[in-house]
Amino acid sequence: MATIEELKLRVRELENELIKCKQKQCAAEDAQNQQLHRPKIDRMSAEVVDSNPYSRLMALKRMGIVDDYEKIRTFTVAVVGVGGVGSVTAEMLTRCGIGKLLLFDYDKVELANMNRLFFQPHQAGLSKVEAAEHTLRSINPDVSFETHNYNITTMDNFTHFMERISSGGLEEGQPVDLILSCVDNFEARMAINTACNELGRIWMESGVSENAVSGHIQLIIPGETACFACAPPLVVAANIDEKTLKREGVCAASLPTTMGVVAGLLVQNVLKFLLKFGTVSYYLGYNAMQDFFPTMAMKANPQCSDRYCRRQQEEYKRKEAERPKVEAVQEEEEEEVVHEDNEWGIELVSEVTDAELQAASGAVPDLPEGITVAYTIPVEDTESGDTVGETEQSLEDLMAQMRKL
Amino acid sequence: MATIEELKLRVRELENELIKCKQKQCAAEDAQNQQLHRPKIDRMSAEVVDSNPYSRLMALKRMGIVDDYEKIRTFTVAVVGVGGVGSVTAEMLTRCGIGKLLLFDYDKVELANMNRLFFQPHQAGLSKVEAAEHTLRSINPDVSFETHNYNITTMDNFTHFMERISSGGLEEGQPVDLILSCVDNFEARMAINTACNELGRIWMESGVSENAVSGHIQLIIPGETACFACAPPLVVAANIDEKTLKREGVCAASLPTTMGVVAGLLVQNVLKFLLKFGTVSYYLGYNAMQDFFPTMAMKANPQCSDRYCRRQQEEYKRKEAERPKVEAVQEEEEEEVVHEDNEWGIELVSEVTDAELQAASGAVPDLPEGITVAYTIPVEDTESGDTVGETEQSLEDLMAQMRKL
Repeated sequence: MATIEELKLRVRELENELIKCKQKQCAAEDAQNQQLHRPKIDRMSAEVVDSNPYSRLMALKRMGIVDDYEKIRTFTVAVVGVGGVGSVTAEMLTRCGIGKLLLFDYDKVELANMNRLFFQPHQAGLSKVEAAEHTLRSINPDVSFETHNYNITTMDNFTHFMERISSGGLEEGQPVDLILSCVDNFEARMAINTACNELGRIWMESGVSENAVSGHIQLIIPGETACFACAPPLVVAANIDEKTLKREGVCAASLPTTMGVVAGLLVQNVLKFLLKFGTVSYYLGYNAMQDFFPTMAMKANPQCSDRYCRRQQEEYKRKEAERPKVEAVQEEEEEEVVHEDNEWGIELVSEVTDAELQAASGAVPDLPEGITVAYTIPVEDTESGDTVGETEQSLEDLMAQMRKL
Repeated sequence: MATIEELKLRVRELENELIKCKQKQCAAEDAQNQQLHRPKIDRMSAEVVDSNPYSRLMALKRMGIVDDYEKIRTFTVAVVGVGGVGSVTAEMLTRCGIGKLLLFDYDKVELANMNRLFFQPHQAGLSKVEAAEHTLRSINPDVSFETHNYNITTMDNFTHFMERISSGGLEEGQPVDLILSCVDNFEARMAINTACNELGRIWMESGVSENAVSGHIQLIIPGETACFACAPPLVVAANIDEKTLKREGVCAASLPTTMGVVAGLLVQNVLKFLLKFGTVSYYLGYNAMQDFFPTMAMKANPQCSDRYCRRQQEEYKRKEAERPKVEAVQEEEEEEVVHEDNEWGIELVSEVTDAELQAASGAVPDLPEGITVAYTIPVEDTESGDTVGETEQSLEDLMAQMRKL
């Protein structure tokens, strides 16, 4: 049996061991927590010190690029799809100091995502929105986040999605300023399109091809430009989702380069749109094989299958007709407006020639099993000139060009 | 004084507490370590399972884009400058599964870097190469890393830099396959240029403007294309480094979008060059204000101030003269070669018109204090037709265009 002295010694030993253990525990927890925080910053400053995360952004004012960079904090952007393009898009907006981000996705992080930027192997198994919010908060705690781990295309979720883009702004009840589509399938794009047509919300589309070497971004203003239903893609997955394809040993190729470029072009367009600088692009393509960047624009289709799109077109026409012609004189504060027909200084013309498009086109890819041509253009429809507004090219021409790409 | 019973109770209490503490310590350490590792992968597989980080890259073979994707593991790339462009460049190459990366930088991570991708606030104070290596290793432990925390422009470091690009390949003693310049100043670019001319190593240049809204990438093949000394930039910082400017309250603007796009275009060009697909660009510019992407190419200047460049030009001429004209027939395995004069299927012509360049040019920016025009083009030199090879535009024209940009 132990003596008092032996027991006292043991108590001292244990106490010392416990102190050491607690120190180690604290150090390990500190290391974890360090990754979570920098203090919040109340006001964006232009001060040039190493500790100011906004100095290089505020310098855009001194350089004469942006008039009021701080305004970025007043905007809310919804990012639908937090994959190869969406995650980088959310990170860029976070680093730029956007006011609030709404993230929508229902996928989990997998090691198979590691060939694209943003997610890290230790996040495998977490939901993409949860993992993204954790990383983005640690990058910039000044941004507000709202995440939704669901598929926006199911009935209930779609209703909730509509509600959130209508009233999930920085101030609850206010709409979000812009919706970004960074999804990888037709159904989700159509859902966003339907919601934005009904609510009259401006959105931007993005996409990357299955062979990983081309992509595009597109600005959609309901009633003014072609919506996703005005000129849907010719080729879509025939009701077979990515998971079914994967079970059959087939997957799309992807590259961090193409996805990074598309995210960069998308967020650049967002910054130009929100902060009113440069020329906002209606459509900008990226062909990585040839380093070719086609641009174009399509007016809304008066025979669009989406009735809310047709209603928005009526509304747009009515507003255009009501606009006083001398507007440029009345609104002197908006000096930068180049084209009178909208407030972003952009115009609806195609800047790409047939020859250029043809030059950038490769062979038509073999469609994997389960992928079919979504529809054919009926010949009788294309004979009426009504389908196309005042663009120089007919919808038929543009669709024929899309097929060649 | 404590009784034996009391002491025994205390020992039991302490033992239990110690167990709990050790459990917590382990959990916290696990959480830390989780962020460090996924197991190494011996052979790249195309298997379509969620746990395969290479499935979407290997799919490039099935899509007919790349013949032999696995070859990426045999290449070594040196990235000089691990800032806004270099860090994303290194991350993209890491995620693509490059064999080995050499990273050179002498800067520390600061909160002022947080408006660009890659670094996180908790890394502030660490050296950029150390922080980058830590993150990149956790993203892809299959890549080998070698980091050098020094300024390559000082005499001793320059000698060591030359030695490492000559013999720092995957197999020690072999040269690196490609050097990427992602630096932000004239002296460092000139140092890389000097080293690559002397060693006859191919490199790619990248750059982003001070106002954050334009950038470029460029492929430089010593003896064949213009080197950095053949047509140096007209405007450089007059011996005043970034730190001095910062002390005076001046800093360049930067955006995660422009830097991400430039890094994406750079690494895309690297992949096309190393894995032999698509068309490798000699020069690709990015004007974010207009979404304009000029391309061009410049032949080497026979009157270049760098004697190693002139020597490489002689060597190149000699080799070209020795090349048998029927080569295309002899080397049947290289089916994809479009142009006979090099192995990358690229040609030296300007693809941008004067009008296009002019359209994309803004006003000449005000130069901040300490920034001067580096030189003027002597009129007598430009009168001899010798300076320009077989390009359609004279060096003088191209320089005049550069000045407009």
